[in-house]
Amino acid sequence: MHTILKSEKKEVIIGIDKPFVIIGEKINPTGIKKLGQALVENNMDYVKQLALRQVAWGADVLDVNVGHPQIDEAAVIPIVVEAVRSVVDVPLCIDSNDPKILAAGLNAATGKPLVNSVNGEEKQLASVLPLVKDRGAAVLGLTIGEEGIPATAEERLKVAGNIIERAAKMGIPVEDIIIDPLVMTVGHNSMAATVTLKAIELIRKEYGVNMSLGASNVSFGLPDRHSVNSSFLSLAMQAGVTCSITDPIKLGSSIRATDLLLGKDANSMRYLKYFRATEKLREAEAAAKT
Amino acid sequence: MHTILKSEKKEVIIGIDKPFVIIGEKINPTGIKKLGQALVENNMDYVKQLALRQVAWGADVLDVNVGHPQIDEAAVIPIVVEAVRSVVDVPLCIDSNDPKILAAGLNAATGKPLVNSVNGEEKQLASVLPLVKDRGAAVLGLTIGEEGIPATAEERLKVAGNIIERAAKMGIPVEDIIIDPLVMTVGHNSMAATVTLKAIELIRKEYGVNMSLGASNVSFGLPDRHSVNSSFLSLAMQAGVTCSITDPIKLGSSIRATDLLLGKDANSMRYLKYFRATEKLREAEAAAKT
Repeated sequence: MHTILKSEKKEVIIGIDKPFVIIGEKINPTGIKKLGQALVENNMDYVKQLALRQVAWGADVLDVNVGHPQIDEAAVIPIVVEAVRSVVDVPLCIDSNDPKILAAGLNAATGKPLVNSVNGEEKQLASVLPLVKDRGAAVLGLTIGEEGIPATAEERLKVAGNIIERAAKMGIPVEDIIIDPLVMTVGHNSMAATVTLKAIELIRKEYGVNMSLGASNVSFGLPDRHSVNSSFLSLAMQAGVTCSITDPIKLGSSIRATDLLLGKDANSMRYLKYFRATEKLREAEAAAKT
Repeated sequence: MHTILKSEKKEVIIGIDKPFVIIGEKINPTGIKKLGQALVENNMDYVKQLALRQVAWGADVLDVNVGHPQIDEAAVIPIVVEAVRSVVDVPLCIDSNDPKILAAGLNAATGKPLVNSVNGEEKQLASVLPLVKDRGAAVLGLTIGEEGIPATAEERLKVAGNIIERAAKMGIPVEDIIIDPLVMTVGHNSMAATVTLKAIELIRKEYGVNMSLGASNVSFGLPDRHSVNSSFLSLAMQAGVTCSITDPIKLGSSIRATDLLLGKDANSMRYLKYFRATEKLREAEAAAKT
């Protein structure tokens, strides 16, 4: 099953038979204070810089989130989308909890964007799915039910099924739904990752849909988070996850390596190209700092 | 199924329900010139240093190989085994192609060592398995048949079956056989890792035996080998590999992280303990260099 996202001129295909798709996570003021400040000041230079840098490091799609208490997000998101579009030609992932902000972002995006996100709660499904249908977008569906994130893989499968079914009734094709089976930190519960890996297998077997994971939540509260995040992404890719909203600078190498190991990179072409490109970027960025 | 290895006082259990077992690879003159020189000079200080350092960095078992053109290996291996035993109390893995050298090493080792290795060739089986039986050792069986390393997973399963059957006829219990399904470099053939991952699954399903992999061959000829090696080890662990002859200093972190992700580390105890210990080692080793 292929999920196709589009920018003005480019198409990105997400599928189990394709290389893993990296959705760059950095255009999000949560955690990047400097970006929040730039948005408040309506200064798009830093947004453009984040867009360019992530694409250079291998992002195929860019997430755009403008959540910040001091700005009118619905007014700002079209400006940010426009700024990103002015420097890179990649599909966008419009990221908000608020349907009004999603609508504003979707309206500004060209091609076929991804909506981030809907979950399995009735209220969310009713408010977000019509936007997805009207825009002809794809949507990320989180396996959160009315009572929060289910503890078991079977219950997450059930929530995924509910999202797929509700979308189908509205005329959204199943290939335009990407399920996020969610992962909690193994720092609090050492079975947290195995539940998610099992959910991935169940969802893949039952529905064959594309799946995405945020790869950093799993290591929350632990030291050396990179070892945990990169190992988890490899395990999730083997289980059937096909894209991730993540940091291409930190995780690009292990994603390209895992694609190669899973037989998705004939003659190591992508792996070698990525290595050469990022080797130069690393040197250039180090030189710029000194 | 549990494979139990023993030193004088310690027991190491290898099994799918246990944390991954690291067999330190560094006592091997191939690739460590300084060790070859030390062996020629009958100087055991460097051997002891390599033993101590690997165990400090998390090796559960130590491989001992003395292959070098300028020494009488059968005479030297007992001296090296004795030197290792004098500084660390871990089970040993006696490593040679030559039955005479294996016999000398097994004779010097206490407890229950691992023999590295036998393959599926008739001549090898006939010369190595009796040594394993007589010593009450465990043995590593490589899936190499009369025509070399089979190209397909199904043929490697067949060679594994042949080794297990031949050992059984000789009275070696199946739990004392660890199969190495072998991996070639993905740099030459991009399906090389998927063949091995499939072989792991087939062998696990059919025989349930413990499996080992060398984790560095897979990246031969590629740049940034660490990304490929660590991702591959995670994938192999998920598929069912339970130990590896590898470098604990380079791969210890991602092995501990993968154990944690696979639900084999309650309350992250091993992960955290390893992080704290190696953080101190890293500082101490950096200080010693300056």
